[in-house]
Amino acid sequence: MSKSEIGLIGLGTMGAMLSLNIAEKGFAISVFNRTSSRTQKFHEEAGDLAERITPCKTLEDLVASIAEPRAIILMVPAGAPVDEQIAALRPLLGKDDLIIDAGNANFRDTEARAAQAEADGVPFLGIGVSGGEEGARHGPSIMGGGRKDAWDRVAHILTAIAADYEGTPCATWMGEGGAGHFVKAVHNGIEYADMQMIAEIYGIMRDGQGASASDCAAAFEAWNDGPLQSYLIEISGKVAAATDDQTGKPVLDIIQDRAGQKGTGRWTVIEAQHLGAPVPVIEAAVAARNLSALKAERERGEALFGASPVALPDGALSRDDLEQALIAGKIMCYAQGFQLLNAASAEFGWGLPMPEIARVWREGCIIRSTMLNDMAEALTAAPQDNLMFSPFFAGLIEANAPALRKVVATAVSHGLQSPALAAGLSYFDAMRTGRSTANMIQAQRDFFGAHSFQRVDKDGAHHGPWGL
Amino acid sequence: MSKSEIGLIGLGTMGAMLSLNIAEKGFAISVFNRTSSRTQKFHEEAGDLAERITPCKTLEDLVASIAEPRAIILMVPAGAPVDEQIAALRPLLGKDDLIIDAGNANFRDTEARAAQAEADGVPFLGIGVSGGEEGARHGPSIMGGGRKDAWDRVAHILTAIAADYEGTPCATWMGEGGAGHFVKAVHNGIEYADMQMIAEIYGIMRDGQGASASDCAAAFEAWNDGPLQSYLIEISGKVAAATDDQTGKPVLDIIQDRAGQKGTGRWTVIEAQHLGAPVPVIEAAVAARNLSALKAERERGEALFGASPVALPDGALSRDDLEQALIAGKIMCYAQGFQLLNAASAEFGWGLPMPEIARVWREGCIIRSTMLNDMAEALTAAPQDNLMFSPFFAGLIEANAPALRKVVATAVSHGLQSPALAAGLSYFDAMRTGRSTANMIQAQRDFFGAHSFQRVDKDGAHHGPWGL
Repeated sequence: MSKSEIGLIGLGTMGAMLSLNIAEKGFAISVFNRTSSRTQKFHEEAGDLAERITPCKTLEDLVASIAEPRAIILMVPAGAPVDEQIAALRPLLGKDDLIIDAGNANFRDTEARAAQAEADGVPFLGIGVSGGEEGARHGPSIMGGGRKDAWDRVAHILTAIAADYEGTPCATWMGEGGAGHFVKAVHNGIEYADMQMIAEIYGIMRDGQGASASDCAAAFEAWNDGPLQSYLIEISGKVAAATDDQTGKPVLDIIQDRAGQKGTGRWTVIEAQHLGAPVPVIEAAVAARNLSALKAERERGEALFGASPVALPDGALSRDDLEQALIAGKIMCYAQGFQLLNAASAEFGWGLPMPEIARVWREGCIIRSTMLNDMAEALTAAPQDNLMFSPFFAGLIEANAPALRKVVATAVSHGLQSPALAAGLSYFDAMRTGRSTANMIQAQRDFFGAHSFQRVDKDGAHHGPWGL
Repeated sequence: MSKSEIGLIGLGTMGAMLSLNIAEKGFAISVFNRTSSRTQKFHEEAGDLAERITPCKTLEDLVASIAEPRAIILMVPAGAPVDEQIAALRPLLGKDDLIIDAGNANFRDTEARAAQAEADGVPFLGIGVSGGEEGARHGPSIMGGGRKDAWDRVAHILTAIAADYEGTPCATWMGEGGAGHFVKAVHNGIEYADMQMIAEIYGIMRDGQGASASDCAAAFEAWNDGPLQSYLIEISGKVAAATDDQTGKPVLDIIQDRAGQKGTGRWTVIEAQHLGAPVPVIEAAVAARNLSALKAERERGEALFGASPVALPDGALSRDDLEQALIAGKIMCYAQGFQLLNAASAEFGWGLPMPEIARVWREGCIIRSTMLNDMAEALTAAPQDNLMFSPFFAGLIEANAPALRKVVATAVSHGLQSPALAAGLSYFDAMRTGRSTANMIQAQRDFFGAHSFQRVDKDGAHHGPWGL
């Protein structure tokens, strides 16, 4: 029997879909799951693809069934399970056998695992895979990290299974160590922010304009033909249009307003804090999810202070205003995200390929959108620059920021939640405020802590004549 | 020669001031600094207090000069220096000798050191000390953490040197392990937010109303006689009133608008993220400091897009509007801070004494204010409740939130930076929005990731009819 070209451990939803994807692209793959019955069932249900899939009952069988030097993908829950799996697997492998963690690892764990592998003289990759179940099955976006030579060994498989954007596969090596998982985390942070800004616009329509779910669906559908074209706008239209079988009501109206999270948005803002890189739109989005969990307190607040949102006067905001606000807010969010990537690249010495990041996000992943192609072009021209300053996006901002200002001011006046959009606008204004009010903060700090301040008219550290 | 009651290592500004404070309160103290000349100089300059201070040239001398069981305060830079000092000192000490880290430690380090001390069977305290140089010398606010029996051994000294609020010392044991340093970090996070909101109001006066520094000083001075009475408002008035000797201009106008930070605000928002506790006002304040550092980019943005702030129409905002906005914003900020403390207390099992935290902050520390006394009362009545819901603060919010809304909407419309105030208003509105728009986010998550959602009309986890 000929040996498999690659192995995969962990046949949960993502692992199973990725295995089918690999087999479908013509690669022989060996698979293993801790619960053997799942391996068997997966193989039985693989249909025509079963002939390229070798189900293995033990790790030893798995290792024996793969051609050397081996490459084995781990798709197990992030955290301790990854370390346990590596510990169980490594003794069975040769020095050239490659372990690839394709789960949702925190990049700091990936950094540590890569350093350990380096010390042990064995190859290791940490790759971020985005696109959910559907993406894993038919073409995800893949953000690779680790030794470049290890990536090159499996690049033909990873690019074959990745999403395709007009002939370019959405799979790229981002840099050493945890670079791939870091890029994936920022993707997810941006995803949180995109989703939150859409939810805010939805809220303005629903609570400010009395729009029904199907009215909202129509707006999202229309916007998906314009500059906002994206998977998230598309599915927002679909979920708003869907009807609940049980009640005949719009599905949106029967869904509880408590948002879950798996932690990657949180990681993004924590790392941004460590790097001192401002990502206020993403922070607002994570805060909004945390606030959504406080349902009982929000109801108590509503009873005590009255409901927050009040209806807008007729014509206060047009659908065009809302579309334009979302365009401007989205640019600010991505500008922050790419600046965060820049900061991380400098801090960790990754040399992240900025335009490639935008390219790899154009298809397969959750934040895929037309605008990412324009971002790839802007970042090709000026990889380290803030996107705001590229001619294309500066033009879009000039055209759309007035609507963002109008929408935020109107929302604020009427108690309609718009924290992420407001953070985007505030970022725009901060980034065009040559003289801020941080002089007051420096004065206070020098007054109470003798922290000193810089002067506008000469160099050096100075203290105020506070007469303490 | 009789032995000292306590020792102190590290005669930087804070350590020196704390030593003088301890001696002045009548306690004999032994002091040691790595550079002996500083120890000598400190002793020589201690005046009348020198007789109660024993300068030591070696750690051995220090240990020998303190009565058993010993207590030794470390006031060295946070991080590795603390561990190094402990490693050097511990072998010289007996099992009952107490080490007290009074520096600005990250509470996670304090947790680890406390756990190590527990394992070694030796006593250890981590105490947060706030109030800057002046506070350390004449009465800081002290937030203790570690074993209660260890605290009780030195409580008579720590309460004697602490600030006094109408007969109550501002020194309290907060809980085991890193509880004291955690409370101190949240203090600093709130401090960042208080300072940022003041800076925003200053900016509205300066850039929106064309107010001179002395006009601004007059406003802060007036507000310091009302509900905003606080150290930070007081010093804002003082720094705004000060004149630069060299140019004759207001000092504020010659201070560069780049704000520094030592990291404790950052720690606060990182820990809040780990706990899922929303602190958007503090996040906005930290982001504003990070943005202030991007001076060159802000100037580039101003050149490209035009300067952000534009003048307000006459009478758009009154000084009363600004005062009231600051009152409402401040309440939101503290509500978030105390809820963060609640979340940490539950997570780490500290049983934090909520009203005592407000009491210990009433005097000595940077955020001291009249309002903290009202907070102590509200938290006595309902320690775990959001401050917004206490009758006293709910009344203040009802009276002042309309001005906050007016100020934020006006600032947003005119490009005047108000991210922290806006975050406070948004939090208020979120906390009285019984039905948020998180249903849209849950719909999206279920659509692309099969994460499931809750329904409003029945229990359980459900999926949408997305027809994928």
